[in-house]
Amino acid sequence: MRRGTTACLAAQTPMPDTNRQVSTLNPSIQQRFAQIRAQTEALAAPLSAEDCQAQSMPDASPVKWHLAHVTWFFETFVLEPFEPGYQAFNPAFKVLFNSYYNAVGDKHPRAQRGLLTRPTLAEVMAWRDNVNARVLKLLNSNDSPAFLDRIELGLHHEQQHQELLLTDVKHLFASTALKTTYAPAWPLTTIAPVAKAWVNFAGGVQHIGHPSGSFGFDNEFPRHQVFLQPYALQNRLVTHGDWLQFVQAGGYADPQWWLSAGWDWVTENRAENHIQAPLYWRRTAQGWMNFSLHGEVPIDPHTPAVHVSYFEADAYARWAAATLADHQGARLPTETEWEAAVASHEAAHIAAGNFASSKALHPMAVRDADASDRGGLLQAMGDVWQWTSSSYAAYPGFAAWGGDVGEYNGKFMVNQYVLRGGSCATPADHIRASYRNFFPTHARWQFTGLRLARSL
Amino acid sequence: MRRGTTACLAAQTPMPDTNRQVSTLNPSIQQRFAQIRAQTEALAAPLSAEDCQAQSMPDASPVKWHLAHVTWFFETFVLEPFEPGYQAFNPAFKVLFNSYYNAVGDKHPRAQRGLLTRPTLAEVMAWRDNVNARVLKLLNSNDSPAFLDRIELGLHHEQQHQELLLTDVKHLFASTALKTTYAPAWPLTTIAPVAKAWVNFAGGVQHIGHPSGSFGFDNEFPRHQVFLQPYALQNRLVTHGDWLQFVQAGGYADPQWWLSAGWDWVTENRAENHIQAPLYWRRTAQGWMNFSLHGEVPIDPHTPAVHVSYFEADAYARWAAATLADHQGARLPTETEWEAAVASHEAAHIAAGNFASSKALHPMAVRDADASDRGGLLQAMGDVWQWTSSSYAAYPGFAAWGGDVGEYNGKFMVNQYVLRGGSCATPADHIRASYRNFFPTHARWQFTGLRLARSL
Amino acid sequence: MRRGTTACLAAQTPMPDTNRQVSTLNPSIQQRFAQIRAQTEALAAPLSAEDCQAQSMPDASPVKWHLAHVTWFFETFVLEPFEPGYQAFNPAFKVLFNSYYNAVGDKHPRAQRGLLTRPTLAEVMAWRDNVNARVLKLLNSNDSPAFLDRIELGLHHEQQHQELLLTDVKHLFASTALKTTYAPAWPLTTIAPVAKAWVNFAGGVQHIGHPSGSFGFDNEFPRHQVFLQPYALQNRLVTHGDWLQFVQAGGYADPQWWLSAGWDWVTENRAENHIQAPLYWRRTAQGWMNFSLHGEVPIDPHTPAVHVSYFEADAYARWAAATLADHQGARLPTETEWEAAVASHEAAHIAAGNFASSKALHPMAVRDADASDRGGLLQAMGDVWQWTSSSYAAYPGFAAWGGDVGEYNGKFMVNQYVLRGGSCATPADHIRASYRNFFPTHARWQFTGLRLARSL
Amino acid sequence: MRRGTTACLAAQTPMPDTNRQVSTLNPSIQQRFAQIRAQTEALAAPLSAEDCQAQSMPDASPVKWHLAHVTWFFETFVLEPFEPGYQAFNPAFKVLFNSYYNAVGDKHPRAQRGLLTRPTLAEVMAWRDNVNARVLKLLNSNDSPAFLDRIELGLHHEQQHQELLLTDVKHLFASTALKTTYAPAWPLTTIAPVAKAWVNFAGGVQHIGHPSGSFGFDNEFPRHQVFLQPYALQNRLVTHGDWLQFVQAGGYADPQWWLSAGWDWVTENRAENHIQAPLYWRRTAQGWMNFSLHGEVPIDPHTPAVHVSYFEADAYARWAAATLADHQGARLPTETEWEAAVASHEAAHIAAGNFASSKALHPMAVRDADASDRGGLLQAMGDVWQWTSSSYAAYPGFAAWGGDVGEYNGKFMVNQYVLRGGSCATPADHIRASYRNFFPTHARWQFTGLRLARSL
Repeated sequence: MRRGTTACLAAQTPMPDTNRQVSTLNPSIQQRFAQIRAQTEALAAPLSAEDCQAQSMPDASPVKWHLAHVTWFFETFVLEPFEPGYQAFNPAFKVLFNSYYNAVGDKHPRAQRGLLTRPTLAEVMAWRDNVNARVLKLLNSNDSPAFLDRIELGLHHEQQHQELLLTDVKHLFASTALKTTYAPAWPLTTIAPVAKAWVNFAGGVQHIGHPSGSFGFDNEFPRHQVFLQPYALQNRLVTHGDWLQFVQAGGYADPQWWLSAGWDWVTENRAENHIQAPLYWRRTAQGWMNFSLHGEVPIDPHTPAVHVSYFEADAYARWAAATLADHQGARLPTETEWEAAVASHEAAHIAAGNFASSKALHPMAVRDADASDRGGLLQAMGDVWQWTSSSYAAYPGFAAWGGDVGEYNGKFMVNQYVLRGGSCATPADHIRASYRNFFPTHARWQFTGLRLARSL
Repeated sequence: MRRGTTACLAAQTPMPDTNRQVSTLNPSIQQRFAQIRAQTEALAAPLSAEDCQAQSMPDASPVKWHLAHVTWFFETFVLEPFEPGYQAFNPAFKVLFNSYYNAVGDKHPRAQRGLLTRPTLAEVMAWRDNVNARVLKLLNSNDSPAFLDRIELGLHHEQQHQELLLTDVKHLFASTALKTTYAPAWPLTTIAPVAKAWVNFAGGVQHIGHPSGSFGFDNEFPRHQVFLQPYALQNRLVTHGDWLQFVQAGGYADPQWWLSAGWDWVTENRAENHIQAPLYWRRTAQGWMNFSLHGEVPIDPHTPAVHVSYFEADAYARWAAATLADHQGARLPTETEWEAAVASHEAAHIAAGNFASSKALHPMAVRDADASDRGGLLQAMGDVWQWTSSSYAAYPGFAAWGGDVGEYNGKFMVNQYVLRGGSCATPADHIRASYRNFFPTHARWQFTGLRLARSL
Repeated sequence: MRRGTTACLAAQTPMPDTNRQVSTLNPSIQQRFAQIRAQTEALAAPLSAEDCQAQSMPDASPVKWHLAHVTWFFETFVLEPFEPGYQAFNPAFKVLFNSYYNAVGDKHPRAQRGLLTRPTLAEVMAWRDNVNARVLKLLNSNDSPAFLDRIELGLHHEQQHQELLLTDVKHLFASTALKTTYAPAWPLTTIAPVAKAWVNFAGGVQHIGHPSGSFGFDNEFPRHQVFLQPYALQNRLVTHGDWLQFVQAGGYADPQWWLSAGWDWVTENRAENHIQAPLYWRRTAQGWMNFSLHGEVPIDPHTPAVHVSYFEADAYARWAAATLADHQGARLPTETEWEAAVASHEAAHIAAGNFASSKALHPMAVRDADASDRGGLLQAMGDVWQWTSSSYAAYPGFAAWGGDVGEYNGKFMVNQYVLRGGSCATPADHIRASYRNFFPTHARWQFTGLRLARSL
Repeated sequence: MRRGTTACLAAQTPMPDTNRQVSTLNPSIQQRFAQIRAQTEALAAPLSAEDCQAQSMPDASPVKWHLAHVTWFFETFVLEPFEPGYQAFNPAFKVLFNSYYNAVGDKHPRAQRGLLTRPTLAEVMAWRDNVNARVLKLLNSNDSPAFLDRIELGLHHEQQHQELLLTDVKHLFASTALKTTYAPAWPLTTIAPVAKAWVNFAGGVQHIGHPSGSFGFDNEFPRHQVFLQPYALQNRLVTHGDWLQFVQAGGYADPQWWLSAGWDWVTENRAENHIQAPLYWRRTAQGWMNFSLHGEVPIDPHTPAVHVSYFEADAYARWAAATLADHQGARLPTETEWEAAVASHEAAHIAAGNFASSKALHPMAVRDADASDRGGLLQAMGDVWQWTSSSYAAYPGFAAWGGDVGEYNGKFMVNQYVLRGGSCATPADHIRASYRNFFPTHARWQFTGLRLARSL
């Protein structure tokens, strides 16, 4: 929103004051509400009104749309049912900023979100302020579980869109010859590369799914038993250095490594999009470059490989299994293998992870090789979402939430694959070991990477 | 650009002062330069930065892109060859705002102009000011014909984009449920509907093409002889009332009226775009509505039918020929029939016409039925571009301009049809009887309509 | 091949004599080889050379191509490696009739199989005879396990194509207004409709996968343990009568029953393919008709619903769960639930099933309601392939076959869903409880239906 | 139809006996009817039932469809209105073999003609025989002009499809790796290459169009005056040798030679169809090869260039104008320039031309350089259809035929360009100087080439 150049506008649309005196009824959630809402706006702060308007592809949304849609979520699912005497801020917004909830009514077509020049960014910001004030006021007078659950859901929903806002603006800035930089400065880090190694897990009957007692999406329930054969996970994520080997070995030109549908994807896109490397790689006379939210940089071999599709992740694993020493049988893990291995050290993994708060906004090399208190796994969470070989499906006994929010997750349970662990664009307080992200097999504009597994 | 709400921005990017003291070398063209450049900005004034960013379809361009591209034209074709010590304002702009000139170098993809969030609108305005000042300065020191011809070309080019700016923003505003209004107020007019009648022309050998002595595009040359059989043109344009008859008679559902390719176009678009009426018509319980730059209004039967494709215009003519009294043999005119009939009263036609300066920005009903000094033809120019049955082709002996601007017209001479007369969005000082506009047969977001002809 | 009208041709291309004196080395497999090869030709017998030539869609293949491709399989994977002094019948056929084996070399494009007018059908039949004779001869002299395994694989491969031949010719005959009949006579059956009921299963740790000791595809291995929650399966398949209720209740018009991708599929195909009912249904003034290999017939409410996509099967289950008495929680079964329930009575299920040998070539109503010796399940195998909610994936520890045939199954393990049980077009000696068929979620030209499940 | 291998079939479907005793009422037209109908069958004789079944692209039709459609034309437009007590041979055929006549009723979809496996080829031949006998009988009893005009139209229609049959089977045979040969033997010719030269024409008012007195299509009428500026035509067609120069000079890689839409066509097809040369050219280590109806042969530099689109023809002309000596201003001729130059020596041009009866079925080099009695023009007719720069449009005063056949020509008058002169696949008694063929700008599977023109 480039407040520097639009000081007069800022005067009209005050930011929610996160230091303001909050009421006493729900102090902690009021604080979190104000912080998370402010964080979304902080992410948009480096952007002009024009930057916030454009939609670079149907899968991505304009930043302004994200700012509006999360507000629509609070107005539709919190204010409308819970605010006495509720009146819409602007009835037209109900259609314009509905993402996919058929039960709520009409929707603006997804691929045409970039055409919503009205309301302006300033008007969306004013709407945010209005809804913020009304929700905060409501938090003073209502502490029913139904109400507080909706607030909680709205905040997790907003955090999901914080990540999408970053991946979508990255895609937009990569779309033009200008290669615009979102954030100029990199954080300083100390790198401690480690050798690849396998960490073994015994298998047997395991419990999987959200343990209850805190927020979780419906797709993480019910917690249930699964039977796992013995398996191993690699200690760290696959790196850009690893991937460069795959590229240089001709991995993108040899159908033997690819799923049949994956090879179709590679070849059908070769003419136009040149599938010869991960998204955002660009070949130059000086070697491969990589577009990041800090601009275009050379490939760093120690950082985790990122922006690869499921097809690419799977092909890499097959190539590695056939080619690399000590990789026989290498494959993607299942989501249950992943969760069973990670859940027991969840807090330590999150504490060690590279999440949005690091402001790296890019996967980072291993910084701390001592994994003794983390079950032997490094980079288990954060940096990049890790593709699993598990198709996104209902857990046994799954029941979608009731009411309008029932469309949140269940209707997407087909033709998508589960990713685990969160990424450098995920808020650290949004992730958990049981968290299930999901994308189709060709998607790669998210921060997606992989960790290898094998059966024992 | 909504200067009202961005006063602080306006302070940084002063408008060219059209009243400023101009030098004495080329006073008239300096005045025109300043006026035409300011007029483009005046057309953008009601729009926000967001409005100027969006691209509603590949055929349309964002308003910001229009503002920039016409500036690119002056920088590339005037400053670069003629300014001593020329330096680019920003070298990246040469690629970003090149429309289709292969000889000039790389181009940003046409369908992705809406992704150019940088430069911002404010930066484009600053660029405009910079180029304006440099061109005006150059006009003080250079009066070579080559230089002045380029200025002239640049101004006519800018006027073409003024019209496109309006048609593109109309398409954008029609794309969302909000149906945003571009200009609130309608001009007041007195309507004087006239009955349809035929005006006869004798044919024989006629001279067609630009008579020289003033500016013309290369496609209007050379003036040459053609042989015309005797023919008649209808005295006025086909109206919305006429068209409603066609719609109500089931014209859009009966293949006998349509060219084979036209019927394919109707049926293939039925599912998605519902080709059942002209673009921007919407059926309501109260009858058909029509989206205009002043918002959605009921169909006015006396106003000229507009936003019809070549296919629709041709189908209407066939239906009229078979169905209406005194319409036997009705068809679209050829461009030579049209020009031969109109050229002799060119000045009177332009004076009587509804052009952009009327601020109607919509075709208007006949206001003055006395056509005695206009060869019997009403609405001969202005209101709507009139489809002709002539494929856009080179005149005998045609030679494209030399140099970079040689790509201006010639390379489009295939699979397009000629339109004549200008529209309510055309500047009156931009049009002439020999002017050849051209669009493909399915295009209808321009102000396109028709006048009937027949052979005698 | 319509041998009746081409008797002179038949004289030139003798059918393999299945009664001929077979050698003593591998008598049983020689017999089976001759029978299965002859059965493929018997399926093509009612068809003209023209019928065998056409390809109705990229997913389907011409009958002639099937006849040739299965022969290519024996020549490429049996004769080439095992026949001393092997020489190709025609080297060009190696490319023309390769389906998808990259390791074997070039392939003719799948969507253009209908353009292979050469070799003619008669030439393909001569090739079949040649390969048959050579394989039978080889069976006299070779009984190595490697060789016999390949023969076995080739026969199962040929049986897969027997089913595809039927589904592809059904699709072809349904493609024109003539609605050609493949087989005129229906078998006589006695119908014994049964009420819907649920059969409970306890769950716990179960063994899944092929038990070894007989032929199985690589994707059925290794047998392994899974943990199942308690569940129930419905005693019979969902019928056309059940489905008609769903259609009449507006099931195809209400997004609440559909996966998001399923609803996209319904709406995007509505204009062109009218997704308002299963494939081959046609609405008439007399009610819904259904195209079968015996011609177009009225919907029979007691027969199993067939030719539904995964999306439709899933939507039906959601609708049933919300709408029908005693269907709360109804859903598709997982493939492990299905196999755990069916495997224990495999032989009885196959004996009771409606397979290709019944010559019904259409799902049939329940004929025998006594399921006491079949674990309570009717129609567990045969009639229609049963969609499961399981994405097609590798079993833990899966390893694809070595060598060229390694591409048989593994490379398709993504974005497809598993179907179980075989259909009315499947040879009875080709199916087993551990058999895993798989198709994408939109496919419905196979004989695909469903059985409901629910968690307890 | 490969009668050799289907002798038993031929016995059932006797060919019309062209030597049979014809009646005395309309002997000449009976003879022509029998000959032209037999010629169509002779063209299909080398083809198997399978060859006659396949459709290689939507623009092409199966040979069987051609055989049936021309029969449909006689049944629908001759027998149905003129035969007393008319009864349909098979009512279903009315829909199956209707090409595009909306007035006649429903149509089978054009792109799915290859799916019409029924009726078989033998049945189509029986239908031909039946219709032939009935038409011949009618010719004994009816000599009304209306009836005889329809016979004449039907014969010219059949000759048009004879040409299409050849171009469509060529496209089919080129579609597979087999590169099947249609006709093995080439005719022997003596080549007499000539240098390029320009033949001047004075222009002025000319008469254009069919002079009446013999058969002509409605689009050739009315004969009318046009005004031509002085111009020249090149004495011979552009050759493969000329074209090779264009290819080798990088003509397909340089946008400056191409219409904007032409360049889009080149680049959008590059990935898939490799637009780098005319259709049927194939680059080999030994140089460019060219697929002909006699199989694949090396490029012969003296033969006329063929299978080029309008875009390619236009680009060649622009390149020649800018590059070759004595080619300044070279361009495609207009159709009026072409006709004015050729019509005065029509009979001599046809006599000298390479038409279907030569059985070359490929353009041939100049064989006789003495053009003194042909107005200085060589290869004016035959060899290849010559692209003109004229969009296909109605002549002034044009009126389509009345009744059902009114759809024959008029509804295609948009977005197509006129070709003149006939080709090596055209029957010599089917062509005339006023004959107007037309195809879209990207079409190139017809025998299409060009002759250069320029203004004086």
